[in-house]
Amino acid sequence: MTGAYLKSYLMTAGPTPLPPAVSQVMAEPILYHRAPAFIEVYARCLERLRIPFETTNDVLCFASSGTGAMESAVANLVRPGDAALVASCGKFGERFAELCDAYGAATVHHDAGWGSKVDPADLDRLLDENPGVEVVFTTLSETSTGVVNDVHALTEVAHAHGALIAVDAVSGLGAVPIPQDEWGVDVVCSGSQKALMCPPGLGFASVADSAMERAAAKPGRRYYFDWVATAKGQRKDPPDSPFTPAVSIFMALDVALGMIEEEGLEAVFERHRRLGRAAREAVRALELDLFGPEDEGANVVTAIALPDTIDGAKVPKTMRDRYGVTVAGGQGRLKGRIARIAHCGYFGAFDVTTTVAAFEMTLRDLGHPVELGAGVGAAQRVFQEAGAPVAALPA
Amino acid sequence: MTGAYLKSYLMTAGPTPLPPAVSQVMAEPILYHRAPAFIEVYARCLERLRIPFETTNDVLCFASSGTGAMESAVANLVRPGDAALVASCGKFGERFAELCDAYGAATVHHDAGWGSKVDPADLDRLLDENPGVEVVFTTLSETSTGVVNDVHALTEVAHAHGALIAVDAVSGLGAVPIPQDEWGVDVVCSGSQKALMCPPGLGFASVADSAMERAAAKPGRRYYFDWVATAKGQRKDPPDSPFTPAVSIFMALDVALGMIEEEGLEAVFERHRRLGRAAREAVRALELDLFGPEDEGANVVTAIALPDTIDGAKVPKTMRDRYGVTVAGGQGRLKGRIARIAHCGYFGAFDVTTTVAAFEMTLRDLGHPVELGAGVGAAQRVFQEAGAPVAALPA
Repeated sequence: MTGAYLKSYLMTAGPTPLPPAVSQVMAEPILYHRAPAFIEVYARCLERLRIPFETTNDVLCFASSGTGAMESAVANLVRPGDAALVASCGKFGERFAELCDAYGAATVHHDAGWGSKVDPADLDRLLDENPGVEVVFTTLSETSTGVVNDVHALTEVAHAHGALIAVDAVSGLGAVPIPQDEWGVDVVCSGSQKALMCPPGLGFASVADSAMERAAAKPGRRYYFDWVATAKGQRKDPPDSPFTPAVSIFMALDVALGMIEEEGLEAVFERHRRLGRAAREAVRALELDLFGPEDEGANVVTAIALPDTIDGAKVPKTMRDRYGVTVAGGQGRLKGRIARIAHCGYFGAFDVTTTVAAFEMTLRDLGHPVELGAGVGAAQRVFQEAGAPVAALPA
Repeated sequence: MTGAYLKSYLMTAGPTPLPPAVSQVMAEPILYHRAPAFIEVYARCLERLRIPFETTNDVLCFASSGTGAMESAVANLVRPGDAALVASCGKFGERFAELCDAYGAATVHHDAGWGSKVDPADLDRLLDENPGVEVVFTTLSETSTGVVNDVHALTEVAHAHGALIAVDAVSGLGAVPIPQDEWGVDVVCSGSQKALMCPPGLGFASVADSAMERAAAKPGRRYYFDWVATAKGQRKDPPDSPFTPAVSIFMALDVALGMIEEEGLEAVFERHRRLGRAAREAVRALELDLFGPEDEGANVVTAIALPDTIDGAKVPKTMRDRYGVTVAGGQGRLKGRIARIAHCGYFGAFDVTTTVAAFEMTLRDLGHPVELGAGVGAAQRVFQEAGAPVAALPA
C-alpha cells in the first residue's frame, strides 16, 4: 500500500481539497486582467465574497497568502509606538504578535495558552490595565489547535474599551459563522485556501468604515497591502486591482463562491457542524481525548491528543505513507503530541469516515489498541441521525 | 466576427499565454505544502529558478504579484530617511519611486522620460550629485513603453559609486538576458506571469550576498516580504516556505521552468530576438513609427506609435472585440497614443503574424490606409530568413 499508485486523500486545513470544477477552471486559457472576460469574473467575486463575510463592506483582495492579509491589518492600523493588544491561543495568533513587533508596535501579548480559548473576561481585564490600546488582534479559528474563539464576545469587549478589533479568520471563514456586520467586527482577514475551497494565493481583508478611517488617517509605510489604494481600485467601475491580480485563482474563486451560494451559507455551516460533531464522536468512541476544550462550535479542525504510549510524530507519516491519507500533526510546541483532522471546505461525511478509518489502522500499526470501525461507526451515526443529505455539496 | 464564438488570442505582456501543459497541471488535485509530493516540486522550482536569473543565489519566492517582489526590495533595503535613487522611464519605474516614498526614503527620482532609456551617464552624474545614495532602483524591461535598459552599464555605474542596484525584471526575465552573477546585479525582482509563462501570483527576488547583508543589518518593519526569514525557510532541508505557498502556481512553474530548461536559455533569448525583430520589421513595413528608440535588444514588448489621424484608444478595443486579439494600449500618459504587442514567454512566429494581421485590419477599419499583408509579410521574412525552426518551443 505504498508508492505512486496509492490513492491519496487530502485532509489538511489548508490547502484543503478542491472541488473538481474549481481545479478544472484553472486549466482554461488564462485571461488578461483588463479584458471584459476577466473583469466580469473579478466583479462577481468581489460581490460574492460578501456572502461568507456576511457584510456589505468591500472585501479587499491581495495576491498573497492569508498572512499577507493579516499583515495588511497590522500595516494599516498600527504605527510605531502604538499600543496593540494581541490575544492569542496558538501559532497563528502568535503571528499577529510577531507582525505587531515587526511594525514597531508597543505590543501587549496575551497568550491564553495553546489549546485554550481566549477568555473575554481576560481581554476585558487587559484592556482595563492597558487603556492606551486602540486595536485588538485575535483569531477566529486557531488552526494549530482547533480552537474557535468567541469573536462576538471579544468584539463587544474591545468596543466597550473603545478599541477596534481585527480578526484572523483564515481557516474559519466559510466554516463557522462570523457575521461581520451583525457583530460589528472591524476587520476580518481570510485566505482562499481553507473553507473557501480554492488554492492558496489570495488574501482577503473585509474592512469596516471604522478601520478604514483609521487607516486613511495613517497613510504611508505600506504600499502593496495599502487598504485605501486597494479599495479605490475595487470601487472603480469597472473594478480594478492596483496590481496584477492572481487571475487563475480568481477563476477558481468564482466557481467556489458559486458553490457556496448554491449550497447556501447556513447549509454550509450546518454541514461543518455535522462534520465536526462526527469527528469528535469518533475520537470519543476510540477512547482518546480531544485536544482543547469541548466545544460544539469548533468545527474547522479536530485536534486529537495522541496517546503518550506511541510516537506521535509517526501518526501523520504513517497515515500518509501507508494509507495515502494526509493529515497534519502538531506544529511548534505540539509536534508529536496531536493529530489534526481538517473538515473545512470541500468535505463530506465520507471524508471523515475515511480519515478516521486510516487513523484507527495507524494507531494499531503503532501499537495502540483500538477496535477497528469503532470511531468510524460513531461518525456514521452522527451523519445518519442527522437525517438530511449526507453530503449537501453540489456535485 | 463577434461574441462568444470568436476565437481568442492573448497577446499581452502579462498575464501572457500559458502553454497547455502549464495550464493543465493546475487542474490536478491540490497538494499539501508540507507533503513530500509538493516539497519535491517546490525544491525543483527553487533550483530551476536559478536558470533564468543566471545566478547561484537563492531566488526568494513570495505569494504576490511582481509588485510584491519590488516592495520586498524597498522594504529590505531602505529605512526612513535613507537616500535612494530611482532611475525610471515609465510607469513601472515610477512604482519604485512610489514605493521608496511610502517607506519614507529620501527619494531622488530621475525620470528619463517615457519611451527613453535610462542613460548610464545620467546615473553617473546623479550619483555624483547625491553621494549619500546607497541603493539605486531601476527597470530592465519597462513594460509600459517597450524600452529595455542597459542594466549591465547601470550596475557598473552604481557600483563605481559604492551603491547597490535593485532591478525590476518582471517582464524582462527569461525574455532578454540579465545574467545576474556575471553582471553583479545585487537584486533582481521578477514575477511568474511574463516570460516565465505562468499565471500571476508569484513574485521573485534573487538577492546577492551584498544586498542580503544590508537587509540583515536592518531588521524589522517588514514581515511577509522579509528576505532573511524567507531565505532561512528556503535553505532548510527540505526547503520550507514561511507562509503557505501558492501551491497551484508552483505546480505550473515547475512545468514552465522545465520547458525553459529543455529549450535552453540561449535558444529562448534567440527566439525572443527574432520575435522582436519581426514585430519591428512589421511596423516599419506599415510605415508606422516605433515608440521609443531603435533597439535590437528591446525584445519583450513592441510599442507602436499610433497615427494621429485615428482614435488610438479604439485600436486595442477593435482588435479585441472584432478580431479576438487582445493587445494592450498605452497606460497613463500614453493612453490612446500607442499599442503594445507583447512577445515574451510562450510566443512563436505565428503569434506575431496573427497580431500584425489583426492590427492591419483594425487600422483600415479606423480609417488609416495600410496594405493588408505588408506587415505580416515583413514579419514572415524575418522568421524565414532566420532559417532555424520557426517555433523552437517544446510542443
